[in-house]
Amino acid sequence: MKPCPIVLLTDFGHHDPFVGVMKGVIAGLAPAARVIDLCHEVPPQDVRAGAFQLRLSAPFFPKGSLFVCVVDPGVGSARKILWARTARHQFLSPDNGLLSWLTEPVLEWREVSNRKLWLSQVSSTFHGRDIFAPVAAHLAGGRRPAALGPAVRPSWELTFPEARRQGPVLSGEVLAFDRFGNAITNVARAAVPDAARIFFGASEIGPVSASYAGKPEGSALAVFGSSGFLELAVRNGSFQARYKASLGDAVEARG
Amino acid sequence: MKPCPIVLLTDFGHHDPFVGVMKGVIAGLAPAARVIDLCHEVPPQDVRAGAFQLRLSAPFFPKGSLFVCVVDPGVGSARKILWARTARHQFLSPDNGLLSWLTEPVLEWREVSNRKLWLSQVSSTFHGRDIFAPVAAHLAGGRRPAALGPAVRPSWELTFPEARRQGPVLSGEVLAFDRFGNAITNVARAAVPDAARIFFGASEIGPVSASYAGKPEGSALAVFGSSGFLELAVRNGSFQARYKASLGDAVEARG
Amino acid sequence: MKPCPIVLLTDFGHHDPFVGVMKGVIAGLAPAARVIDLCHEVPPQDVRAGAFQLRLSAPFFPKGSLFVCVVDPGVGSARKILWARTARHQFLSPDNGLLSWLTEPVLEWREVSNRKLWLSQVSSTFHGRDIFAPVAAHLAGGRRPAALGPAVRPSWELTFPEARRQGPVLSGEVLAFDRFGNAITNVARAAVPDAARIFFGASEIGPVSASYAGKPEGSALAVFGSSGFLELAVRNGSFQARYKASLGDAVEARG
Repeated sequence: MKPCPIVLLTDFGHHDPFVGVMKGVIAGLAPAARVIDLCHEVPPQDVRAGAFQLRLSAPFFPKGSLFVCVVDPGVGSARKILWARTARHQFLSPDNGLLSWLTEPVLEWREVSNRKLWLSQVSSTFHGRDIFAPVAAHLAGGRRPAALGPAVRPSWELTFPEARRQGPVLSGEVLAFDRFGNAITNVARAAVPDAARIFFGASEIGPVSASYAGKPEGSALAVFGSSGFLELAVRNGSFQARYKASLGDAVEARG
Repeated sequence: MKPCPIVLLTDFGHHDPFVGVMKGVIAGLAPAARVIDLCHEVPPQDVRAGAFQLRLSAPFFPKGSLFVCVVDPGVGSARKILWARTARHQFLSPDNGLLSWLTEPVLEWREVSNRKLWLSQVSSTFHGRDIFAPVAAHLAGGRRPAALGPAVRPSWELTFPEARRQGPVLSGEVLAFDRFGNAITNVARAAVPDAARIFFGASEIGPVSASYAGKPEGSALAVFGSSGFLELAVRNGSFQARYKASLGDAVEARG
Repeated sequence: MKPCPIVLLTDFGHHDPFVGVMKGVIAGLAPAARVIDLCHEVPPQDVRAGAFQLRLSAPFFPKGSLFVCVVDPGVGSARKILWARTARHQFLSPDNGLLSWLTEPVLEWREVSNRKLWLSQVSSTFHGRDIFAPVAAHLAGGRRPAALGPAVRPSWELTFPEARRQGPVLSGEVLAFDRFGNAITNVARAAVPDAARIFFGASEIGPVSASYAGKPEGSALAVFGSSGFLELAVRNGSFQARYKASLGDAVEARG
């Protein structure tokens, strides 16, 4: 059987050998498994940011992909590690809500508690290396999920911050910024009438544009981005810098 | 047939899951294709910088490599996406001049217009995921380039900023900085006499050194770098920081 | 024969195509070889930092792995390039001490001097591309190490900065910081009594904690990290920033 792809999502960054060492462990136990880096620059210990990235990204990965998700402020505590399965994918994650915002329902949860599938020595600070990587390799190599540990329920679920409607005004917020300084909001396409005007705080950005390219250089614009959510941008500039925007800042669609 | 290597060059950075998602799309459509990251830190929307990186890097990749080049300030506009073929390589790129500085002549251009090879839903902001990645996967899997779309001519060509000679003075400029703060110029080796003295603005750097290592720690030096172009460096330091150097700053080889 | 994994450790960063070009060279000469990025953010030209990362990481890679280590302030000088073999691994490295702190003894050293295994043109500034990558590809493809060049002894060995004991006080120092701002020290677990109190300069950090998670948010703590060495951390914060800590700062375990 061909091993499933292993997809890594962490807050480990690129400054240190953390991700490389996880790949070393995987290469030893599942030499034929393909490893794909989804992202390693989740802001440190920001479980919500990781959950949001996973929500937007997972649908584009092939059936059978195994996501290894390590944003883990509770590493070394008694928090469990979970395995989860949806119709198309599998996931390993700390039990901290990181899998709360998947677009597919989770059909099965298990606790990752079978120490025979971990490294023989487990540190209190780097479970990515000592537990997540070897367990992922065993799964990719064909080990049955039932071997990981017993069925459980997750302890935490994060509530997605849905935009709220009050009359003609839909009130949302900035959920993330990307590399280009675009602000990604929680305002979904389906909720916004075609004629709506978009506001960032007191600043009117204008109607929704069809693309970045529809505006002159340096203009602010609102566009439904690749996330499916409304994004605020500055054409070939940074919205975040221009508007001194922060996570949680208010965004409205009026009318 | 073994799939050709897919080589990614983008300005997507590592902060976001953009590159990871492209790899997810490729893994679904061409599971056996090998994907190589050339660079993802092209300065945002800087087509010239991407063109220069591609010029210096492509010759070191094996015959048959497919370069997927996404530096795309016009994403979502009516700009075309192009496929190009040289004697050794294939390329996908926005029609914005990004392929202008290849060292091999382009033998064939096509417009990437056959929507059957794209994702079924195409956003206006992330053609890397929705068009470039699936088209690359189809090509890597053996799809014939003629299936992509009709033969075309590119709309844009960037002029390479050649250094200019006036008598004994060859005048060039800084084209790029690397991670170490070395300044890469457009002054080519063949154009510089052995006895030339190198100037950065009014500062004499000295004659061309054989290597970084020929000078004491902290000294400025000029060397023909791995690019084949003259590079200005500070031995185990940053030329860019020491000289407050900027892109476009004047560099001269005299005599 | 299946090619051995090639593991890359460099100070090339992600800003430039340096690492990508090395992979291009490898892909041309050893198309079936798997390449794993260990880390590319070793601080520029910091041989000690690279040696420390290698010491902590290599044990987690499978037998047969070939580490290509390029932290090379002497590139272009007469410094040799070395191949080394331990019981489980192979290494390529400049002859500058980068392999000094491996946990396994080196059983064989060779000089990498056979130019037939290099690229035909060798720059004075990028031996990663011109020598290390092609030599690694040849080794991964099954070339015998004896073909690289003659047996030699390394010219440099770095002394590991061991912590020193004077009566009840064990005096160490900060060796590295990770992405999260944790300070990794040279104080090894075996040398610290259970009841010891940890000091950073004049600040008492407290006894050694079992994990990050044992303390409230924002508290400083000392923990034996995944490195096996004492690490100073701030729970879900940055020790480096909070304590304005620098490399070499004094750390003590008392009692």
